[in-house]
Amino acid sequence: MTDHVKLIADMGSAARTAFAKLSGASDAEKALALRASAGKLRDDRDLILQANRSDMQRAGKSGLGDAMLDRLMIDEERLESIAKAVENVAALPDPVGEIIDRSAPPNGLVMERVRVPLGVIGIIYESRPNVTADAAALGLRSGNAVILRGGSEAIESNRAIHRAMVAGIAAECLPADAIQLVQMTDRAAVGAMLKASGLIDIIIPRGGKSLVQRVQDEARVPVLAHLDGICHTYVGKDADQNKAIAIAVNAKMRRTGICGAMETLLIDQDYPAPGPLLRALIDAGCEIRGDDAIMELDPRTVEASEEDWGTEYLEPIVSARMVQGVDEALVHIAEHGSHHTDVIVTEDQIAADEFMRRADSAIVMHNASSQFADGGEFGLGAEIGISTGRLHARGPVALEGLTTYKWVVRGTGQVRP
Amino acid sequence: MTDHVKLIADMGSAARTAFAKLSGASDAEKALALRASAGKLRDDRDLILQANRSDMQRAGKSGLGDAMLDRLMIDEERLESIAKAVENVAALPDPVGEIIDRSAPPNGLVMERVRVPLGVIGIIYESRPNVTADAAALGLRSGNAVILRGGSEAIESNRAIHRAMVAGIAAECLPADAIQLVQMTDRAAVGAMLKASGLIDIIIPRGGKSLVQRVQDEARVPVLAHLDGICHTYVGKDADQNKAIAIAVNAKMRRTGICGAMETLLIDQDYPAPGPLLRALIDAGCEIRGDDAIMELDPRTVEASEEDWGTEYLEPIVSARMVQGVDEALVHIAEHGSHHTDVIVTEDQIAADEFMRRADSAIVMHNASSQFADGGEFGLGAEIGISTGRLHARGPVALEGLTTYKWVVRGTGQVRP
Repeated sequence: MTDHVKLIADMGSAARTAFAKLSGASDAEKALALRASAGKLRDDRDLILQANRSDMQRAGKSGLGDAMLDRLMIDEERLESIAKAVENVAALPDPVGEIIDRSAPPNGLVMERVRVPLGVIGIIYESRPNVTADAAALGLRSGNAVILRGGSEAIESNRAIHRAMVAGIAAECLPADAIQLVQMTDRAAVGAMLKASGLIDIIIPRGGKSLVQRVQDEARVPVLAHLDGICHTYVGKDADQNKAIAIAVNAKMRRTGICGAMETLLIDQDYPAPGPLLRALIDAGCEIRGDDAIMELDPRTVEASEEDWGTEYLEPIVSARMVQGVDEALVHIAEHGSHHTDVIVTEDQIAADEFMRRADSAIVMHNASSQFADGGEFGLGAEIGISTGRLHARGPVALEGLTTYKWVVRGTGQVRP
Repeated sequence: MTDHVKLIADMGSAARTAFAKLSGASDAEKALALRASAGKLRDDRDLILQANRSDMQRAGKSGLGDAMLDRLMIDEERLESIAKAVENVAALPDPVGEIIDRSAPPNGLVMERVRVPLGVIGIIYESRPNVTADAAALGLRSGNAVILRGGSEAIESNRAIHRAMVAGIAAECLPADAIQLVQMTDRAAVGAMLKASGLIDIIIPRGGKSLVQRVQDEARVPVLAHLDGICHTYVGKDADQNKAIAIAVNAKMRRTGICGAMETLLIDQDYPAPGPLLRALIDAGCEIRGDDAIMELDPRTVEASEEDWGTEYLEPIVSARMVQGVDEALVHIAEHGSHHTDVIVTEDQIAADEFMRRADSAIVMHNASSQFADGGEFGLGAEIGISTGRLHARGPVALEGLTTYKWVVRGTGQVRP
């Protein structure tokens, strides 16, 4: 057993013990603990900001890019947001103990499915230190133990935030091992987590595509993630022209770097005003890579390569294509999409329903911007990630996705004939 | 690409296409198709029985044991049960399209989670040819495509049953590739299925421990299964003595070979009548392997080794141990159990609730025999398997466990601020 495997095995065992203890904690205890953690984050302001400055200095010297440095940086305002987010999670309803359904089959038994925590959750993330607090809060709120493994560039910030989170929950006498931070910053620790089946119940990667890809390729533990967000907006022939422009521009340009950003625009060949739609995107600063029909409409468009249809740009670039009806739009999405979020813009309710029934995406939308693909916007109060997998939880995942259920069967002495 | 990988890739692609077509099929079409399949199974009686005789002859010559031969055998009565089971699945309510929940967050969007089929399901099973019809029926009823891989000893029976199933669904113009049978009978075909991620969404193994173990070890596709059914019955100090005897004897002896059979009996040290309880089991033909305290109670008991506590006998043998209260019972179960089904017998409601809250098992029961752990008894109408995993579906799995959901979001032109 290598040091890394042993370390993760020890952390996993401690997490399982903590998880068992947590299952006896009440809703109020978990909420109070998180409020205490939020308070401790504020109390530890100087320590956390100092740790972050040290990370920033080291990262600057090692030549980390500006975007990464920005993700890493914590100032007073950001620290307050982190503390506030923990309080928001504390205020969410506890999913544990919810009775999902109840039945009474003829054998006289009464069956309930009762929501219980998932178990031990491994979170693997990159430079944003706020994930340390976010993931710990969501995990604890739903009764789970978490093992956190952040990026090496953020290790001092993560340690300081982790200390505050643990101090909060320990103040409420909840088990400190419910929130553990992997102190080893080399990649072998990640490898050990990915293979810790039986100890870690699910791995959630939070970060760029290369991280998610590695986790999906190597994991022997179930993974909840999305690799790509190749989101389509299909503007049907009966689309309202103002809605089409507003939705397309927002879906691409509001924030180009998020997974719910539109990457491909499909315009029905019978949509009467494709020109103004393209113009609005271009005027908003978007590059359009189109097929022949698109290129004929506006000289400022460039030619799309085959590769463009499967590219998540995360930049002000969109691929665009003319399609013939809902069928062809769906064929394109089935071939090139990533099962994340796909949108139809139309005033034809029947076409909208057909599109939403047949598109095999975690999220299908009618007359709305794909940028709404977010747990907060979906009313979940928070988000640990978005899943494009088909099992367990799909789309935005918050507290409910961090639970499972058990069957609770009550009898009066029944034996099976 | 080896032949096997190519074969499975081709079957997987065909299955995905069939799955997409099936998602347009109505409840009535799917039910009618299964009724047609049941009719075809009856029409093909001579063909199926003849194919089975051929399998039986080959298996007899190859020295297959009596138990295996019995599992393989189909006579008229068993064929009628197979057809009837398909009709029963046809009569179950279609889970697809069910609205799980609906919300309307302040952004004005209306969100629904709508149940949809899981996708492509791989079933890997051993000698029982009825699984061919069962799994195909459950898969189709919930809108999924299935890829079936049965044991080589049953290949002719499976082919004949598969032909009948496909003829039925084709008669209703549903896609024939929704039910595919792997014709290659060597183990490499199983290996290719286990690695077909992206093509097969979930693998369900049906068979003995060595099959399940291999599937769990090698699969790169999510697996829904249970490896062991080490079920405990804890007789608390306040147990009703008649209930305790009836439940323990039934839990072990009704059928010793099923996964819900009791393997370990935990008796509270303050339970006043342990002797009669042990006597009843021994009189029913059960061997008892006990700790020192148990051995003192009855000279017919033998000593349990450490290994006994983690053994699924599937025979008229039970391990038995004295424990001190709910706590020690739970510690024993946490250490040696398999998260399948664990039972408390007591008249103390508080102890029962505590046991059921803290036991980390897919199924927890109060005052009932663990042999009820079965989808039919749970009112699910059928069962594709029992899951001791924590993700997606837990305990007995039927149609709902073969579905996932999508988020259907309806807007009126909303863009995200």
